[in-house]
Amino acid sequence: MIDILHRVGVKAPLDEVYKALATREGIAGWWTTDTTGDSKVGGMLKTLFSVDGKVLGGFDLAVRELVPGKRVLWQVIEGPAEWIGTKIDFQLRQEGAYSIVMFKHEGWKQPVEFMHHCSTKWAIFLMSLKSLVETGKGNPSPDDVAIGDFH
Amino acid sequence: MIDILHRVGVKAPLDEVYKALATREGIAGWWTTDTTGDSKVGGMLKTLFSVDGKVLGGFDLAVRELVPGKRVLWQVIEGPAEWIGTKIDFQLRQEGAYSIVMFKHEGWKQPVEFMHHCSTKWAIFLMSLKSLVETGKGNPSPDDVAIGDFH
Repeated sequence: MIDILHRVGVKAPLDEVYKALATREGIAGWWTTDTTGDSKVGGMLKTLFSVDGKVLGGFDLAVRELVPGKRVLWQVIEGPAEWIGTKIDFQLRQEGAYSIVMFKHEGWKQPVEFMHHCSTKWAIFLMSLKSLVETGKGNPSPDDVAIGDFH
Repeated sequence: MIDILHRVGVKAPLDEVYKALATREGIAGWWTTDTTGDSKVGGMLKTLFSVDGKVLGGFDLAVRELVPGKRVLWQVIEGPAEWIGTKIDFQLRQEGAYSIVMFKHEGWKQPVEFMHHCSTKWAIFLMSLKSLVETGKGNPSPDDVAIGDFH
C-alpha cells in the first residue's frame, strides 16, 4: 500500500466543506482556478495548473462518488503517468466545531520522488481548502504556495 | 510499507539546510522552540510541543546518523505509542539553486487517523524549515500553523 494520507480540520459546517469539494466553483477556489467540466457522478472534471502564465499540466478526473456531507471520490483518467488510475478520496465527518477531512490519494505504484512532492503539495492544497471555507479565500493555482523546484 | 513521504526544495546552500536539521538551535527554529538534549550521533534530542502555554506532548529522538550536507536520521525512543521505534529520515541533495529535502517518516504499523494528521503536520513543519533557512524565520511550536482539532 503506497498512499498519500492527510487530515485537516475545518472550522465550518460539513455542507460548506462538501460544496468546496463537490462543485466546480468550489474546486476552483482552492485547487486550481482553471477547473472545467462536469462535477456530477459520471462526469469528468478537467484541471490545469499554471506558473507565470505557462500551463505546467493537469488532470482529468472521473467523478466516481458523491455523498453529500460525507464523501467525494475521483479517479484520475489523464495526467502524469504516475497519477493515471489512482483514486483521490475525501471523507468527511463532524468532530465538535470541526469538519474533519480524511484524505487519501491511493494506487501509487512506486514511492517515486514525484510522489513525495505531491504528498507535500496536497497538504498545501488542503490548507488552501481550509482557508477557502473558513475565510472565503483559498490559494488555488496559479497563486498556490510553491514548495520547491517542482513548484 | 506505511510511510509518510514529503519533498521540499529550499533555495539555499546544502550546509544551511543541514545545520537547521543537525543542530539543536536549528531544530528549535522550525520544529519546536522547546528542543533540548544532544544533537550528536548517539545523543538524544528531547522535543516538547505546546499550545496556549500547555504542553501537548513530545518526542525523545536518538540521533542515528549525521552526514554533513547529505543526511540526518533520527529514531523515536519516547513519545506517542504510534511513533515509538519509527525512523525520521532527511536526505539532502543539490538541484540547481535548490537544496532538495527528501523526507521519510517510516515504520508506522497502521495508517491510523493520527498518522494522517502527522503527515499533514510534517508538510507544515517542512515549510517552516524552508522558511527558516530562506528568510531566517520559521514557525516552530508554539507558533506553528494549526491544521485542525488535533492542532
